[in-house]
Amino acid sequence: MIKVAVIGFGVVGSGVVDMIHDNKNVLNENTGERIEIKKILDIREFPDDRHGFLVTHNADEIFNDPEIKIVVETMGGTKYAYDYSVRALKAGKHLVTSNKEMVASHGPELLKLAKENKVRYMFEASVGGGIPIIGPLSLYLAGNNINEIYGILNGTTNYILTQMKETKISFDEALKEAQEKGYAEANPDADVKGFDAVRKIAILASIAYNKFVDYNDLECEGITQIEAEDIRLAEELGYSIKLVGHTRKDGDKIIAGVRPMLVPKENILSNVNDVFNAIMVKGDFIGQTMFYGKGAGKNATASAIIGDIVDIIRNPGVMQEKVWDIKAAGLGDQEQENASFFIRYLSDNGENCAIITEVRKESEIRKIYCEKYDVKNIFKVLSF
Amino acid sequence: MIKVAVIGFGVVGSGVVDMIHDNKNVLNENTGERIEIKKILDIREFPDDRHGFLVTHNADEIFNDPEIKIVVETMGGTKYAYDYSVRALKAGKHLVTSNKEMVASHGPELLKLAKENKVRYMFEASVGGGIPIIGPLSLYLAGNNINEIYGILNGTTNYILTQMKETKISFDEALKEAQEKGYAEANPDADVKGFDAVRKIAILASIAYNKFVDYNDLECEGITQIEAEDIRLAEELGYSIKLVGHTRKDGDKIIAGVRPMLVPKENILSNVNDVFNAIMVKGDFIGQTMFYGKGAGKNATASAIIGDIVDIIRNPGVMQEKVWDIKAAGLGDQEQENASFFIRYLSDNGENCAIITEVRKESEIRKIYCEKYDVKNIFKVLSF
Repeated sequence: MIKVAVIGFGVVGSGVVDMIHDNKNVLNENTGERIEIKKILDIREFPDDRHGFLVTHNADEIFNDPEIKIVVETMGGTKYAYDYSVRALKAGKHLVTSNKEMVASHGPELLKLAKENKVRYMFEASVGGGIPIIGPLSLYLAGNNINEIYGILNGTTNYILTQMKETKISFDEALKEAQEKGYAEANPDADVKGFDAVRKIAILASIAYNKFVDYNDLECEGITQIEAEDIRLAEELGYSIKLVGHTRKDGDKIIAGVRPMLVPKENILSNVNDVFNAIMVKGDFIGQTMFYGKGAGKNATASAIIGDIVDIIRNPGVMQEKVWDIKAAGLGDQEQENASFFIRYLSDNGENCAIITEVRKESEIRKIYCEKYDVKNIFKVLSF
Repeated sequence: MIKVAVIGFGVVGSGVVDMIHDNKNVLNENTGERIEIKKILDIREFPDDRHGFLVTHNADEIFNDPEIKIVVETMGGTKYAYDYSVRALKAGKHLVTSNKEMVASHGPELLKLAKENKVRYMFEASVGGGIPIIGPLSLYLAGNNINEIYGILNGTTNYILTQMKETKISFDEALKEAQEKGYAEANPDADVKGFDAVRKIAILASIAYNKFVDYNDLECEGITQIEAEDIRLAEELGYSIKLVGHTRKDGDKIIAGVRPMLVPKENILSNVNDVFNAIMVKGDFIGQTMFYGKGAGKNATASAIIGDIVDIIRNPGVMQEKVWDIKAAGLGDQEQENASFFIRYLSDNGENCAIITEVRKESEIRKIYCEKYDVKNIFKVLSF
């Protein structure tokens, strides 16, 4: 019997509790263990929930209980969750989380703490929702030099871009629809400005290159400036516009960021639509491999957390092996990369036109084309 | 230092040796160990190969060497490889293979033998080439009830079907081209008749359902009967024709097989082209998730084998946990499933026509439409 505590009984936390309850048979068959939720920490009461009786407001009941071997942190944010994370690891409990903000901000410290306390800090659910990507990248691709990672890492923006393309509506209309469907928050900035995606690519880059990549240092451009005309003209030229998180190594420098890019129709990433996420990894031996699935949602995220719990149970002697070099990674300058660009401009008679440029540095392209045309938008073209 | 022996120095075996040699730094960084190839067993000599000096013709040098902890079997076939596999496991060595024929034929016995000898039998490379699928399915998705798996599991047939679609050539022309490019064997039966794919789906079904699914018992239809007209008409109706390995559970029965199916354009599987493979897994919590990459080739397959080796090194105390119930799984009858079908028939004036039928049992569809029309081909439509 493995006893687990959940901190934060919101959407994701209740998904984890549901999955452990509903799928106890398959979990038992696949781990050889019974998994039990012993306590749930939340400031609220849940009298109508079937697991409401497990709720406590006293964190000591979790951290001082030697029977609890695994703590799942699904509070989100860093304000309170940070202290709980540190306490869990110091108490010698494995820590599993979906909290990307925590991993992207405090990953190096928490990984080190896990190692010192001979437990593991696991965060499969922090990137790509249910998609197994952190485990496969850390383990199964660990023999490859990772050349590049390109990913559609935010479901909300991908839904908005898909709607703009398929129904020819504006960004504002698509955002409103996403909000009505519950895919976007009332304040959509974290998604549409790329803040969510940039944390995720920072986590992937840190794993791929074993150095802490601080998302605060990365280029981050969202989708608010994309107009229906950009999407239409890109499509005519054979491309989809996607918000792409990307990272690669340039010598000993790491290049990483988030920006809207044109993805050619023959690239499978261009067919990743709606709220789905996909992460394309290019390794020197494996070539291109892609991981696709639901990037968010209660059940998909719970599945990723449970995957980490299964990993802990199935590999019981294993401790945190890897930590991220706490000195921030040297970041390369994307500006030095050559690429081709999509340029939308207004013709002399006010018509929207677009071209795909030759391959040059972005600054050169901007200089050349902005002098010549009334440029409305410039996006990089993904070549992968 | 972890010492490894390779049995069979052909395409895949030499890829493994190359990867361990070329990527020693990243492997060291990610495992904390140095990996060394100690011996290579082959009946041939390789005087010109940089690792030729490691070749031995005496298997005892491997099995009697206590320093060798991991044996990689890349001979293929079952004739000699079976004895070597048994000897390796009985000698207490972990066994890693790309040999799908061996896994699909002798999996239950070898898994049991691994468990008895407290080592692991690993075969990530047996399905999907480099794509991490067996590890993720066994570990990260282990908390899900697996509802269905659909996969493009054979790169040769996918290349042929892609060429037929894109350049409107016949099956024979596309096969010839695939042979010229080295994607198809001189005797292409194993690929084009579905024999390769059916072994792979049998392995995936065995993992998903923890019971041995014998590929000999499965429905297996290849692509030799597909004509250019089928592909053209399917495309007009909004579908790609793909050779699909599929499995699902129907009560306590397992349904599995390989057949050409129509995949709707909006399904991401329809955009998996050329020699790429993709496996879509549907779980009760994770929803749809897909794993995509190169399904064959020296380096991609080596990457999967190295992934298994990394897993063994990183999780050193772990033994074979799971074995497949050696009683063959109860197989369900696909004939009882309702589906819609693509029917190509000749009209009265000899013209090729196609329709997508209503949803019914296959036998009923065949009866209804074959009476009414001059039917040329019938394919199931994938609904996923």
